[in-house]
Amino acid sequence: MKHLLSIDDLGREGVDELCELAESFLEVTQRDIPKVPALRGKTVACVFYEDSTRTRLSFETAAKRLSADTMAFSVGSSSVTKGESLRDTVQTIEAMGIDAMVVRHRAAGAPHRIATWIDASIVNAGDGRHEHPTQALLDTFTLRRHRGPSLDGARVAIVGDVRHSRVARSSTKAFAALGAKVTLVGPPTMLPESLDGWPASVSCDLDAVLPEVDVVYLLRIQHERQDATLFPSLREYTTRFGLTVERAARLRDDVLVMHAGPMNRGVEIAPEVAEAPRSVITEQVANGVAIRMAVLYSLLGSGAPVA
Amino acid sequence: MKHLLSIDDLGREGVDELCELAESFLEVTQRDIPKVPALRGKTVACVFYEDSTRTRLSFETAAKRLSADTMAFSVGSSSVTKGESLRDTVQTIEAMGIDAMVVRHRAAGAPHRIATWIDASIVNAGDGRHEHPTQALLDTFTLRRHRGPSLDGARVAIVGDVRHSRVARSSTKAFAALGAKVTLVGPPTMLPESLDGWPASVSCDLDAVLPEVDVVYLLRIQHERQDATLFPSLREYTTRFGLTVERAARLRDDVLVMHAGPMNRGVEIAPEVAEAPRSVITEQVANGVAIRMAVLYSLLGSGAPVA
Amino acid sequence: MKHLLSIDDLGREGVDELCELAESFLEVTQRDIPKVPALRGKTVACVFYEDSTRTRLSFETAAKRLSADTMAFSVGSSSVTKGESLRDTVQTIEAMGIDAMVVRHRAAGAPHRIATWIDASIVNAGDGRHEHPTQALLDTFTLRRHRGPSLDGARVAIVGDVRHSRVARSSTKAFAALGAKVTLVGPPTMLPESLDGWPASVSCDLDAVLPEVDVVYLLRIQHERQDATLFPSLREYTTRFGLTVERAARLRDDVLVMHAGPMNRGVEIAPEVAEAPRSVITEQVANGVAIRMAVLYSLLGSGAPVA
Repeated sequence: MKHLLSIDDLGREGVDELCELAESFLEVTQRDIPKVPALRGKTVACVFYEDSTRTRLSFETAAKRLSADTMAFSVGSSSVTKGESLRDTVQTIEAMGIDAMVVRHRAAGAPHRIATWIDASIVNAGDGRHEHPTQALLDTFTLRRHRGPSLDGARVAIVGDVRHSRVARSSTKAFAALGAKVTLVGPPTMLPESLDGWPASVSCDLDAVLPEVDVVYLLRIQHERQDATLFPSLREYTTRFGLTVERAARLRDDVLVMHAGPMNRGVEIAPEVAEAPRSVITEQVANGVAIRMAVLYSLLGSGAPVA
Repeated sequence: MKHLLSIDDLGREGVDELCELAESFLEVTQRDIPKVPALRGKTVACVFYEDSTRTRLSFETAAKRLSADTMAFSVGSSSVTKGESLRDTVQTIEAMGIDAMVVRHRAAGAPHRIATWIDASIVNAGDGRHEHPTQALLDTFTLRRHRGPSLDGARVAIVGDVRHSRVARSSTKAFAALGAKVTLVGPPTMLPESLDGWPASVSCDLDAVLPEVDVVYLLRIQHERQDATLFPSLREYTTRFGLTVERAARLRDDVLVMHAGPMNRGVEIAPEVAEAPRSVITEQVANGVAIRMAVLYSLLGSGAPVA
Repeated sequence: MKHLLSIDDLGREGVDELCELAESFLEVTQRDIPKVPALRGKTVACVFYEDSTRTRLSFETAAKRLSADTMAFSVGSSSVTKGESLRDTVQTIEAMGIDAMVVRHRAAGAPHRIATWIDASIVNAGDGRHEHPTQALLDTFTLRRHRGPSLDGARVAIVGDVRHSRVARSSTKAFAALGAKVTLVGPPTMLPESLDGWPASVSCDLDAVLPEVDVVYLLRIQHERQDATLFPSLREYTTRFGLTVERAARLRDDVLVMHAGPMNRGVEIAPEVAEAPRSVITEQVANGVAIRMAVLYSLLGSGAPVA
């Protein structure tokens, strides 16, 4: 594997392999000294054209636990504001001597373009409304840890503004690759205009879907980005699509609740539900470090077994 | 010791122990390779909801000299601006795998709340107008290094906007815990409304206090925060409460001058006084790294002797 | 060598020695584990009063490849905004325990002032319109690698807003120190008012100069800073002083094209020219890390041979 740009690059076998590798790295992160020398001397640059402290810290932590060096480039304080082209910026960063570049960009396809310009391995850390493959991998890894290596027949509802969500797109693909049946749930304005590329069915009625699911995956309502036409009000969104205490009470005990964070407590998820035992939201964060270690190790490691 | 939230947690014995430990770390920082492997594999996150490069660098330097990894989270570029709750933010950071969290927050009590939510050790790096215990410890450590381990009978004047100063509150407690007699000096608008929790006396007349003191501790006039009602003008403040060249000339030679920084030269302290031999302001900064090493080591160390 | 403040400090011998040292560090950066323990235990602080991610990352990468620790101080989030003086800020940073300070400041001479205030070694990373010596060294190192250790007789045109460019000033001195003949090219508003301190000749006619040169060094047109009086329009600038495809086609095959970056493609340089084989712009970036390793090693190393 040279790059990780899309879940499409991996297929079921690729997803499985990364999840198995992540299992061994999860064990590393729980050691007293949670580090291995696997990537000593390698440099991982995080090149973020959109703010995301959460994702950047997760990648940086993963890199450090593998003994790699890190380099952070954020657009705010950079020569990008002086009009430099994306190509010149990434070629400059590469010329300083990096082995992998973790890229977040508001334009769909930006990481793919960058991969044609430079020799370093590229990891897509979110490109526009397109993909966010490491989020999908950590979601899948989290589900596998609860349900075993196959997701065959598992029923997952992904609820919220699916249409504008790169997380929804990538996770739908990854869940489906492992055999899960995905239902996308939201008001029509938030569902994909076409199901091309979405191996899923759709519904506008959360209450009809909930009795049939094993997993409820909630998307953040990005009310700071949203134009008013998607939904009349947050309150109405919560009434129809929020995982309220009442709705959660009707779920079977073994149904899992997931969320990619950051949460809007009281909007798409009730605070009590976020903290209930069925919620695996904090596990997702911890698993994120392990899966990113697995991705970086697959891209840059020597192939030697993890110490 | 699990957390360091307030000087109240420590008492005289606790302050003494940390100062003695800091003494050995100060020796470490003066070595050719100023590092010990004491916290190898540990991760210290600096979670700052208020800007403070000075304090953050001091903690990060302390962590690195103990061979810990560091993670920096500043509110500017974070998901906090996306409406995430404090609780979700700190739980997310903890889930990435940290051992201690150094917290600065504009709300008094925020570090205490966080300590109830997560398992990592919490260090209060300044909460609102409440406390700043590591500043108080470095101040006390600095005084002890000049006067010996007991401050019994030492007379300290703390001068400035005491009422709104977390430094004044914490340092008063720490100095008093070691036996010093503290006088808080400023105009009535800057003195505490009640002396509850302030083991000190008060005065509005700096010139009356100065002949009686062994230490003059100046607080920064935060003119960028200040509403106009606290004092008519900076010039008048300086005339009445500034440590001018004239006032300093009247001090005994062995009287020490301290300041928590950043200084407003020409307002609360004259430039010549800041640079005079009696000023220990730069020593305070250097001692700050040593005391923070002592705090982190006490929280996270194995109890093995420092190498 | 205690500081690197100006190319004037070095002379031909100093430039030569640093370039030879950089050659061995360039070899280090190409190893599988591109690190040497030369500066283990040393701390290098980057103190930047002007944004420059590119330069800061280059210095930080150089420091890490020498196993030094780094500390970053940027003015945006610092106590400078609270009115602290430059002197207090740098003395505070030094007191935390640093060995070298890399300084960028908008005021010419700021690094020289700082060198009188603190004991750490100072590296000038750009001061106002004055100097940028490490850029000049990496430019010289890049030329030497293509032409051999002497630049005697090499003809270099430096094209653009020379008058306001610290890069132009420093590189002119360094090229001339090694024997090159430098011509400064631009409209009269962009040429130095006097040639005092510029060992160079001037021309306002790029097309007259180009047939005579071995190297074309393009300066970035800082259109975001520029007041309108320097040049009527970007288009007219490009027509008269841009290295267009047509102009580049008239250059001999062995003429090199350099640029300090970030580039304005389509303004001072055509995209096709930036990517042509004669362009050594990306090499400049890679060589920048090696030369900064050489500078830091010269300032802080023990004198022992590089491992």
